[in-house]
Amino acid sequence: MDYCSEAQNQEKKTLTALQAAEMAGGELLGDPELLIDGVDALDAAGPGKVSFLGNSKYRQQVLPSRASVVLVPTDFKEPPPENRAWIVCDNPSQSFSRLVEYFAPAPPTPEAGVDDRAVVAADVKIPESASIGPFAVLEEGVEIGENTIIGAGCYVGYGVKVGEDSRLHPNVSVREYCRLGNRVVIHCGTVIGSDGFGYIPGREGHSKIPQRGVVCIDDDVEIGALVAVDRARFGCTWIKQGVKIDNLVQIAHNVVIGEHSFIVAQSGIAGSARLQRHVAVAGQAGIAGHLTIGEGATILGQAGVGRDVPPATRVWGSPAMDEKEFLRGHLHLPQLPSMKKELRQLRREVADLRKTLEENQCSMRFHK
Amino acid sequence: MDYCSEAQNQEKKTLTALQAAEMAGGELLGDPELLIDGVDALDAAGPGKVSFLGNSKYRQQVLPSRASVVLVPTDFKEPPPENRAWIVCDNPSQSFSRLVEYFAPAPPTPEAGVDDRAVVAADVKIPESASIGPFAVLEEGVEIGENTIIGAGCYVGYGVKVGEDSRLHPNVSVREYCRLGNRVVIHCGTVIGSDGFGYIPGREGHSKIPQRGVVCIDDDVEIGALVAVDRARFGCTWIKQGVKIDNLVQIAHNVVIGEHSFIVAQSGIAGSARLQRHVAVAGQAGIAGHLTIGEGATILGQAGVGRDVPPATRVWGSPAMDEKEFLRGHLHLPQLPSMKKELRQLRREVADLRKTLEENQCSMRFHK
Amino acid sequence: MDYCSEAQNQEKKTLTALQAAEMAGGELLGDPELLIDGVDALDAAGPGKVSFLGNSKYRQQVLPSRASVVLVPTDFKEPPPENRAWIVCDNPSQSFSRLVEYFAPAPPTPEAGVDDRAVVAADVKIPESASIGPFAVLEEGVEIGENTIIGAGCYVGYGVKVGEDSRLHPNVSVREYCRLGNRVVIHCGTVIGSDGFGYIPGREGHSKIPQRGVVCIDDDVEIGALVAVDRARFGCTWIKQGVKIDNLVQIAHNVVIGEHSFIVAQSGIAGSARLQRHVAVAGQAGIAGHLTIGEGATILGQAGVGRDVPPATRVWGSPAMDEKEFLRGHLHLPQLPSMKKELRQLRREVADLRKTLEENQCSMRFHK
Repeated sequence: MDYCSEAQNQEKKTLTALQAAEMAGGELLGDPELLIDGVDALDAAGPGKVSFLGNSKYRQQVLPSRASVVLVPTDFKEPPPENRAWIVCDNPSQSFSRLVEYFAPAPPTPEAGVDDRAVVAADVKIPESASIGPFAVLEEGVEIGENTIIGAGCYVGYGVKVGEDSRLHPNVSVREYCRLGNRVVIHCGTVIGSDGFGYIPGREGHSKIPQRGVVCIDDDVEIGALVAVDRARFGCTWIKQGVKIDNLVQIAHNVVIGEHSFIVAQSGIAGSARLQRHVAVAGQAGIAGHLTIGEGATILGQAGVGRDVPPATRVWGSPAMDEKEFLRGHLHLPQLPSMKKELRQLRREVADLRKTLEENQCSMRFHK
Repeated sequence: MDYCSEAQNQEKKTLTALQAAEMAGGELLGDPELLIDGVDALDAAGPGKVSFLGNSKYRQQVLPSRASVVLVPTDFKEPPPENRAWIVCDNPSQSFSRLVEYFAPAPPTPEAGVDDRAVVAADVKIPESASIGPFAVLEEGVEIGENTIIGAGCYVGYGVKVGEDSRLHPNVSVREYCRLGNRVVIHCGTVIGSDGFGYIPGREGHSKIPQRGVVCIDDDVEIGALVAVDRARFGCTWIKQGVKIDNLVQIAHNVVIGEHSFIVAQSGIAGSARLQRHVAVAGQAGIAGHLTIGEGATILGQAGVGRDVPPATRVWGSPAMDEKEFLRGHLHLPQLPSMKKELRQLRREVADLRKTLEENQCSMRFHK
Repeated sequence: MDYCSEAQNQEKKTLTALQAAEMAGGELLGDPELLIDGVDALDAAGPGKVSFLGNSKYRQQVLPSRASVVLVPTDFKEPPPENRAWIVCDNPSQSFSRLVEYFAPAPPTPEAGVDDRAVVAADVKIPESASIGPFAVLEEGVEIGENTIIGAGCYVGYGVKVGEDSRLHPNVSVREYCRLGNRVVIHCGTVIGSDGFGYIPGREGHSKIPQRGVVCIDDDVEIGALVAVDRARFGCTWIKQGVKIDNLVQIAHNVVIGEHSFIVAQSGIAGSARLQRHVAVAGQAGIAGHLTIGEGATILGQAGVGRDVPPATRVWGSPAMDEKEFLRGHLHLPQLPSMKKELRQLRREVADLRKTLEENQCSMRFHK
């Protein structure tokens, strides 16, 4: 994958194994002069690359790997072969990030200032440190904090407020009156503040319930690409501090997501559901409306939650139940047909026994 | 959540409880002079707010709520405590919408006219009452009806026709030749008319089946954010009158969705499936290709429909079956391991009984 | 559906049945002079339309159809009624595509050249044969191949390379350093290169793991609308030659998708999973992180894959298992409650038998 290495190490940087060990904050085993010019995964790396063992599942890949240098955990006891080196670290994955950042620097940040081709309403004041990209639209009443970056093609509706040090990547849409805090990051294509899905149903047509609330996104929230966060019917859809949301997630109107919760890709949270702090929702899971998910609860992948979940519990299945009970039951599913057959057989045998017994009782009675 | 109240009540409006009762069309119980300045949910509202009891699940929240005024249904019999008031309504939720609209007015509608920074092909005539936002692109042959609003950054492809009083929110893409009726609303980021997913598979590469049909969206349809509606292979993908589609939904090529159906978030409908009128598809459900879903049928959340569904029935599970049968079976899943154990035990007991009986028969025979 | 026919046959073309048979490469049965002016489905077509029998499921629709001409397979033996004609083809669906292309030609391709309203960084060279639409943004270091089309409103980040004959439909975002090959097609609203979802969790806040790799998309890949493909943490998220991805799919960081795989709508593939060649992932399926899916494997709709899948096998269910075992078990689910009841009854009967037997043994012993 030279293709990718070249894409990453734009600046043709190199490090010796010793320099890499210092940067990683680990202990070097092996040749300190080995030269490395990039990072890669254990199974993809060639000579000249540094890799890491971050998941014990891949332990068997360390020796066969062609990576010159590997970051290994303290319990990895194999010595490095000739012409290779280990860097022993408390947390190889975390240390590896420093090497990744060295070889694959972030692209230049958009320059401060308002691009000539952005549309900024007359009453909007942009701090000098902020950056507004081409073809961005900022409607009346918008407020933008220091150092905040609004990417190309973003739409920022009437009266939206965005705090400091935040970033909207290109082509994000934020509808009227929504609030984003400080250090909020929103990835491409995401929509904040679309109307909640609320109608009064009727045979001849459904009438729309006005959706006049907002979305409030607190500090340090990161939201992935192509996420939809609906505005509240009234009040706010509220994403609290430190929440991390993956791509293609649906957050319905009036949902509240507690501090530091994780919401993994393609999951969906229906109207007025409340997640307490530190909830984890795995991929493609769904949570029905008006439920409460307790602090620290885990909703496993593809689960469909139809009732409240107590704190610190784990649920799975659709509809969801206790993780272990569900899994044990589900794994027995393939045995259901044979169990049914066996049940039928037992029924016959019992009938047969009863018959034999009755006949014997007769004979016994006869013999009395 | 003053944060949100402030965001909503931009115009610092107030009402007395009596005025609110008149606006809501309900009967006031309690102090007519109580002053309110905003709307909020029962559990979030503070003094000065009006709230409502829309779902009997929240009945216990009315008395503890700090909301000054609450809209309650006619069967709510508790009298209001001091310094609070009830407004008794036939339909509190519906009446509440009028107060929401009063305190949280819609943002200003984009002005009529074509923004200087829109690109409108030379042959396109825009009615004076229509509004074309900045960075919108309208290709040749486009037709736009009276009062229709095309938001900032929208792409409207060759020969697309949009009726009257319709609205494309910002950053919507509508590909060539698609048709949108009157009073159609499309939320941000949605894509209408992308190619259907059709290939002739081959070991050395799949060859694309041309997707040359269109998407027809009839009057009064509302489509959420980030929805993908594929164009037909030929003919049209057809979304009929009054259909409401939530966010992140997938509608494949040649699908037909009958009048007034509801399609909830993240559900997906595969190629050439036909939904009759008034079908309800709940969140994250999937419907396989070429199926017919009968009038008034309900597909429950996360169901995976693999065969036709008769009218007015409800299906659940993946693959889907009758709702009640599925649910009863699913709820028994955790008992499968113990049932299996019990089955094994019974088998042993029956064998044991047989043995005893045979021995006795011997002895009986011996005694004869 | 004249509405749609009109949308498709913009140029009012006609064909005789004989001309249609020649275009389709099939044998005509019936009147060679019948005039046709468009294509449609069997059940929707009126007189003057040509249709086809592509799926034997619809065999009963051929005679009742009002289509003047129908493409039928060689094993269709009914003769055409008066005033209608058949065209007998080896592969009616494939032959039909030629008629679709005749009546519903592709819209005009965007003209070559850079639109005045695009933003192209000073160092970017655009070949004369390429087309850059209005409001597209091409950052520094971008490279664009011959004949490639970048649609209106697309964002192409720092150092992105796109090969020849590729097309980004409107409103696509490609983040920095990503690589797209030749003949790559990306549909509207899709996001390539958003950050992978990686954090070091903490009670007081999660710290972000830098996502500094890229996305590499090889030749002949087609990606639907509103798809999210995350950049790698390091190295690349790699979509290999000929892969076809439907709408609203999630591809997480460091995923590798083998040549010619199909990924159907709304499915999701978690971090570092590897799909070998010719894998088929059906709609709404999910694959957990770090797994290997063997060559030619099929993941059925809504399956949730939690362990490696061997080559050429088919899995279903959530968590997924062998397709047939899962299906047999699942279809028995509704019988679980009655099985449980029967088990209880059998237990009682066996106890009863034992009692009777013990009493008889007593009596027998007594009689001895």
